[in-house]
Amino acid sequence: MQLSDLGEFSFLRRLRVRVPGDDSVVLGLGDDCAAVMLSGLTLLTTDALIEGVHFRREWTPFALLGEKAFAVNASDIAAMGGEPVCALLSLGVPGACAVEELEAFFDGFLRAATPWRTVLVGGNLSAAPCIMISVTLLGRAPYGTITRAGARVGDDLYVSGTVGDAALGLQLLQQGREEAIAQESKTRFLSPTARLALGREIAARQLATAMIDISDGLLQDLGHLCEESQVGAVVEAAALPLSPAYRALIGAQDCSLALTGGEDYELLFAAAPEQRAKIQQLALEVGCPLTRIGCIVPQAERITVRGPNGTRIAPECLGYDHFRRA
Amino acid sequence: MQLSDLGEFSFLRRLRVRVPGDDSVVLGLGDDCAAVMLSGLTLLTTDALIEGVHFRREWTPFALLGEKAFAVNASDIAAMGGEPVCALLSLGVPGACAVEELEAFFDGFLRAATPWRTVLVGGNLSAAPCIMISVTLLGRAPYGTITRAGARVGDDLYVSGTVGDAALGLQLLQQGREEAIAQESKTRFLSPTARLALGREIAARQLATAMIDISDGLLQDLGHLCEESQVGAVVEAAALPLSPAYRALIGAQDCSLALTGGEDYELLFAAAPEQRAKIQQLALEVGCPLTRIGCIVPQAERITVRGPNGTRIAPECLGYDHFRRA
Repeated sequence: MQLSDLGEFSFLRRLRVRVPGDDSVVLGLGDDCAAVMLSGLTLLTTDALIEGVHFRREWTPFALLGEKAFAVNASDIAAMGGEPVCALLSLGVPGACAVEELEAFFDGFLRAATPWRTVLVGGNLSAAPCIMISVTLLGRAPYGTITRAGARVGDDLYVSGTVGDAALGLQLLQQGREEAIAQESKTRFLSPTARLALGREIAARQLATAMIDISDGLLQDLGHLCEESQVGAVVEAAALPLSPAYRALIGAQDCSLALTGGEDYELLFAAAPEQRAKIQQLALEVGCPLTRIGCIVPQAERITVRGPNGTRIAPECLGYDHFRRA
Repeated sequence: MQLSDLGEFSFLRRLRVRVPGDDSVVLGLGDDCAAVMLSGLTLLTTDALIEGVHFRREWTPFALLGEKAFAVNASDIAAMGGEPVCALLSLGVPGACAVEELEAFFDGFLRAATPWRTVLVGGNLSAAPCIMISVTLLGRAPYGTITRAGARVGDDLYVSGTVGDAALGLQLLQQGREEAIAQESKTRFLSPTARLALGREIAARQLATAMIDISDGLLQDLGHLCEESQVGAVVEAAALPLSPAYRALIGAQDCSLALTGGEDYELLFAAAPEQRAKIQQLALEVGCPLTRIGCIVPQAERITVRGPNGTRIAPECLGYDHFRRA
């Protein structure tokens, strides 16, 4: 059944029964506004996924798209050290879109949100020439916020997990590669996970001086962190955490995708050297590698990537910019 | 200069200096999340404007589009009796879009938001095949909320301002009409005003039992109010408040556009008959007509429109549905 057979309001009526509530939600879906009880510092973020720009329909099961729509926003909450609380979802879809696919999208979104007791409280559904998804997420910051602006000269620089996998996954999707080794990277692109538990613990234990999530590429996002902190940074290429798939398909000596590929949704943070033991302890506890990849230097030294034997690597581009021509 | 000449991050840097801050905003534009201090009941709403669906670029100066993007969301806050506090703006634009036009859009949005001290705290800018604007607005509800669900049998039914003008304005734009009498209706479509002061006073004085804003057409939105309140309604066609332009160009005897035309952003509310004097007093104070157009009846009687001599008018459609085929 197509959305145009059912109509906007019948679809929304069907949807409402799928969406769980919560005590903090005074008024959920179905009125002009939602109404929620909030107190203290509230985090706010919005991010979009647009067909043809962020995803292609032929690669992307709608359930994964729903999960990703939650994850890319939750990652911003993770990067502040916060916890997501409630979400609004603004959807534009062509009328020929299947109702079942849209429902799979919502189920994916709700499945990703549920472990964090994040409630879908509001939204909007509109006709559009292609699928466009805009999510707004509200969060709390029980341990205060970790901004991009606190890194100090002499701090260590860390990244969580492995980098470059989502960009590799996108390449493999574009090439139509189907081998077993391609699957993990493709999943990293199609269905990323926000590092919410990690971000919250970094905030709770006051381990980081500045933090950002990697959405536009490690160097690009490191650039944002350095700009706000008014510092520079050195990245040791040999230290970059690369997945087995990356090593097998690209090779450990070629770190360009690890440095510039977007959508990894890992956390990049600066921390004082005296936190090293606590950071490795946290890595063990949350089951996620935290790798020291470099250090913070004075702003005048800008950002450099050091290769083997101290050579300086100059990547062709910094990372993803939605508009900049090559 | 095109956005693709400047790049995403340079544009955002230029934009940040245009955006005013506020004491309640702990962290505004430029980090992974915004952080604001909120307390008590918070209203949340999101709405989108999509090129080719909600507007055509050739009709729409970007500054007016910015104003409208604020107004369509603020109207939802008005319909709850609340006040807008802060906004997030998720924008998709083609790379060929002129930077000056985008800046005019932001200036329009900020100009509409400023009288309400509504702060733009966050956003997202992405490439897209056409212009797509998704706004999330947060508000406070100092006098509690007026939902769609409280109308009681015997209540009066009121509408603010005049109805059908935005739909008439859209028709006049489609026809390329340029006469003086067409201007006001076209402005109602291109640059609507949210009834924020009115909505807040209705809440403060506890005048309404249920309220909704008219975005999809009077009958459609009355249908939502009746559904949530589990009541029916009678609308007297002769009582509908029509503008001089509507009377001149369509004629007072043809109320179909007034009943079903979307995007008026007037407030439709139910109120107990003993509030009549207070409601007319409020209309004088805020300088906006509040017209009694019918009454609330039992749910079994559904919604009827009574024409002259008690005839029953059956409009061809209820109002705007994004997907329903005619």
